Amino acid sequence: MWFMSSFPAPLEKLVEQFAMLPGVGSKSAQRMAFYILSMPDEQAKAFANAIVEAKKKVHRCSICQNLTDLEMCSICTGSKREKSIICVVSDPKDVLAIERSREYNGLYHVLHGVISPMNHVGPDDIAIKELLDRVKSGEIQEVIMATNPDTEGEATAMYISRLLKPLGIKVTRISYGIPVGSNLEFADDATLYRAIEGRREM
Amino acid sequence: MWFMSSFPAPLEKLVEQFAMLPGVGSKSAQRMAFYILSMPDEQAKAFANAIVEAKKKVHRCSICQNLTDLEMCSICTGSKREKSIICVVSDPKDVLAIERSREYNGLYHVLHGVISPMNHVGPDDIAIKELLDRVKSGEIQEVIMATNPDTEGEATAMYISRLLKPLGIKVTRISYGIPVGSNLEFADDATLYRAIEGRREM
Repeated sequence: MWFMSSFPAPLEKLVEQFAMLPGVGSKSAQRMAFYILSMPDEQAKAFANAIVEAKKKVHRCSICQNLTDLEMCSICTGSKREKSIICVVSDPKDVLAIERSREYNGLYHVLHGVISPMNHVGPDDIAIKELLDRVKSGEIQEVIMATNPDTEGEATAMYISRLLKPLGIKVTRISYGIPVGSNLEFADDATLYRAIEGRREM
Repeated sequence: MWFMSSFPAPLEKLVEQFAMLPGVGSKSAQRMAFYILSMPDEQAKAFANAIVEAKKKVHRCSICQNLTDLEMCSICTGSKREKSIICVVSDPKDVLAIERSREYNGLYHVLHGVISPMNHVGPDDIAIKELLDRVKSGEIQEVIMATNPDTEGEATAMYISRLLKPLGIKVTRISYGIPVGSNLEFADDATLYRAIEGRREM
């Protein structure tokens, strides 16, 4: 006896594609594929097109390695940006987060990852060389290490600072402490330790 | 002072597209879009292509309304299928679920929805007319209503059975009861009530 065991092939293929995305299980992938089928034709085409266009047009800025659809990103070419200071982050999303704070007006450098021996990511796999080239070219006076305050972010910041210091550059690290608006009671020990250690005169 | 407030336009557009999918919030949409950017070119093209192909090739079977990439689906054209009985479901996924049970060897009819006044879905918005046409054409002896046992599925089954009975057709409903392998203790009252009411001689 024959029983049907799958959706039509083009639908199964689409489900597989969605299931490859991070955080998407097979049930969600099915729901997404069905949603695509329920879209008007032009809308589905627009979706497919957005994938192709993003892939084609978005690349790394030739200077700071942040994502851009221009030759150089709008921060690197911004006339009002302080060009003597670079803030080093691991991810393009971190640039947006820092920009939202409206406190920083210098340049950025996006590493696209952190050094992580566990995941076979070494210093040559992230954009460290490009950072050194920028610093060596002369204009830079300070580099702020703004990788995440976890083990790998910490180790990456340490590794890079050791490369930069011999070049006579001021290397700083973003401060640790209690998040604004949060509650001392719920802060973990390491954060509290760092908050007291890093206390400043009022 | 100018601060960057968004990703490059083609990337933002892709994030928006992913965010339209059911169950995808803006953070997940970002992660998905970044994942696409990290793919090799051909893989991203394959993804885009899967969307276009599924949309172009998958449509409703002209008989049972199930999804297919053929003119008529492989169940409707299957030579070993019992052609006098139709199982009515609300969704193409339900066909696969019933096929997996390997118990049913008849035909299907996919309504693509249930009657739901709350969501402005009336009898004309789902494939009821197509079902009536099939039944009127003659061969059919029994119609099994296999919509979900919730309020809307129940009402839809009731509505359709009232249309079918005057045609001299046997109309049945899938049985309610305790799921196999589950525990009486955790069954809800309505299910237990139905399980006792529907008891059969052993």
